[in-house]
Amino acid sequence: MQNFVFHIPTKILFGRNTVPAIGPETAALGVRCLLVFGRGSCVRSGLLDRVRASLADAGVEVIEHGGVRSNPLLSHVRAGIDLAREHRVDVVVAVGGGSVIDEAKAISAGSLVAHDVWKFFTGRRSIKKTLPLTTVLTLAAAGSEMNSGMVITNEETREKFGTGNQLLYPRTSILDPEVTFTVPPDYTAYGAVDAIAHVLEFYMTTRDPDTPVQDRIMEGLIENAMTACDRCLADPRDYGGRASLMWTATLALNGLTAAGLGRVGFPMHMIEHSLSALYDVPHGAGLSAVIPGWLTWHSRQAPGRIAGLCRRLFPFPDMARCGEEELAARFITILRNWFGRINSPASLQELDIPADHIPEIARNAMALAKIWRLDDYTPEIIEEILHLCR
Amino acid sequence: MQNFVFHIPTKILFGRNTVPAIGPETAALGVRCLLVFGRGSCVRSGLLDRVRASLADAGVEVIEHGGVRSNPLLSHVRAGIDLAREHRVDVVVAVGGGSVIDEAKAISAGSLVAHDVWKFFTGRRSIKKTLPLTTVLTLAAAGSEMNSGMVITNEETREKFGTGNQLLYPRTSILDPEVTFTVPPDYTAYGAVDAIAHVLEFYMTTRDPDTPVQDRIMEGLIENAMTACDRCLADPRDYGGRASLMWTATLALNGLTAAGLGRVGFPMHMIEHSLSALYDVPHGAGLSAVIPGWLTWHSRQAPGRIAGLCRRLFPFPDMARCGEEELAARFITILRNWFGRINSPASLQELDIPADHIPEIARNAMALAKIWRLDDYTPEIIEEILHLCR
Repeated sequence: MQNFVFHIPTKILFGRNTVPAIGPETAALGVRCLLVFGRGSCVRSGLLDRVRASLADAGVEVIEHGGVRSNPLLSHVRAGIDLAREHRVDVVVAVGGGSVIDEAKAISAGSLVAHDVWKFFTGRRSIKKTLPLTTVLTLAAAGSEMNSGMVITNEETREKFGTGNQLLYPRTSILDPEVTFTVPPDYTAYGAVDAIAHVLEFYMTTRDPDTPVQDRIMEGLIENAMTACDRCLADPRDYGGRASLMWTATLALNGLTAAGLGRVGFPMHMIEHSLSALYDVPHGAGLSAVIPGWLTWHSRQAPGRIAGLCRRLFPFPDMARCGEEELAARFITILRNWFGRINSPASLQELDIPADHIPEIARNAMALAKIWRLDDYTPEIIEEILHLCR
Repeated sequence: MQNFVFHIPTKILFGRNTVPAIGPETAALGVRCLLVFGRGSCVRSGLLDRVRASLADAGVEVIEHGGVRSNPLLSHVRAGIDLAREHRVDVVVAVGGGSVIDEAKAISAGSLVAHDVWKFFTGRRSIKKTLPLTTVLTLAAAGSEMNSGMVITNEETREKFGTGNQLLYPRTSILDPEVTFTVPPDYTAYGAVDAIAHVLEFYMTTRDPDTPVQDRIMEGLIENAMTACDRCLADPRDYGGRASLMWTATLALNGLTAAGLGRVGFPMHMIEHSLSALYDVPHGAGLSAVIPGWLTWHSRQAPGRIAGLCRRLFPFPDMARCGEEELAARFITILRNWFGRINSPASLQELDIPADHIPEIARNAMALAKIWRLDDYTPEIIEEILHLCR
């Protein structure tokens, strides 16, 4: 096990009827908030009205900044920063999924500096202070509600970059599984895939061979993401399924799985960010198109770790007689077939991305490989992986 | 899944060479500390001198309060409170295991009130403020380094009572597995048993049948406590084994496993606290003497949950053909035999406690059953369990 610091200051309020807590939780941090939200679902469902009412009851003045889109755009972040400055807000409230929360984080950091917010993403500046942030989560997927990371897309440069800082943890995040009853099947599935990708990425990129505490937690999270997703697709109002998926997605990227693994990387996200910057595919859909190919590439280097996943998660009677390559291939096949059953793409072809685009995707990904210090990844390796994703 | 609040403010610094951080971490909280420690091992190992040096380097004045014993005594807590008041300390530093940290917590709460500290334990007063606390952990066992609970023994009334409060979380806890290289085999084993008891207790007392996220985490922690303990007993200087045991014991009682289970209880600890109040047995040894009998009593009510543990942790080829009673009995036997192998008592007889003491043990336990609102437990049921522990 590698040395680590584990310190999650976020308070999670989880369960039924927790949304009305957003007012008091926010009022404890400020008197004037920027309310950041998306493009319709939280309006249509009435959730936004419940949040507005709770904030008003608590005496918090609200400046609204709606219209955040999936893969949130830098231009929209900049507009939010202008609003936050103009109205001198002292707290930010996000109502949405990872995209909305990430944009709220960027605004909370960007509105307190004179320079452009994008410099935080290119590594030219580091975050020194942020406005406090509270969130009401509407999608089990990204984990942003309990972590210190954020990802924004610069539409001018076609770059989708991420960064992190301890100051970006939300102060309070409200997780009411009932809020996600109305999430449609495709985004329910993409969210589960996102959580699985977060776990798999750390599971595969750790170089410490002795992390059994973390391994058992990660295996449990993968199993739960799959079973909970199946439950939610079978019955969108299955509270237990929605709750399991929500808590699984949060734990999948809140630092618990990574603590002790040493330096882990996000190579799958690196490739997917390139896909969604170039083709605007939903994040989870892009990930599920990359996962089988990326795992296949890994299994050719060292199948042991993926074989272990097969043994732990999908044991079968004659397992002991199988070699590691065979077990690894079996795990990848099971996952690919499951993507098929939940209607999440399992290849670039299913995203209608032609093979001759691969060099451009790889070039775009390399920019992130440099910033994230994924030194093992050359354009040739990324192209090789992308061909395995076809 | 039941509603929950999850909020752990403690910062964990985990790994090799983390002990020298105690000075700066403490200096950020105050200028004069009460240094609380035990009865010798941290002195002999040189750890205490390293802590003193780090505190001195950071400019923190030190008032020493050593001599805390396993099952810490109220009289010694009161002496610590007198010292803390006399010297107007503004921070408490604990160097030790759960007993030392629990006593430091009691001092941190008791030194800020005019009434006697025991009133916090009998429920007559509630904690409103505490001195900040930092810790250097020396034993993987109790989990006190990352939770909000504390247990103290009143030697006058022969009561061992526990209580909890959000203000009791340590601010920073330093977990260096190398510090535990010198823990002798018996306390290494008792620590693993303590962690297993914490997990089993929640696993068995939840009434929510739908907590798969928490279940997989708890099963992983039980497995890791056993395998890590075996490694540490085979080689006391196995860093990976010590690290796994340490992080497992911390996660076993930091709120992660309980979040979502609803109201869980500590019935095994209730019985064990009675044993160690009356006979002064080490906490882990008392627990391992109670676990098999308590699980047997549970399996007679509803074997399903224990059978599930057997399926998950100790699968075997013909498992599918076995009934739940058989699988539950098998799990209990495996655990009992493992206690034998790690030299931890598996019955009251091994602690030399005669059967005719059972009514007195049950009477003592009932006092705690009332305070902890374990309404299902009557003196008759506790006696029945204790007979199964013989």
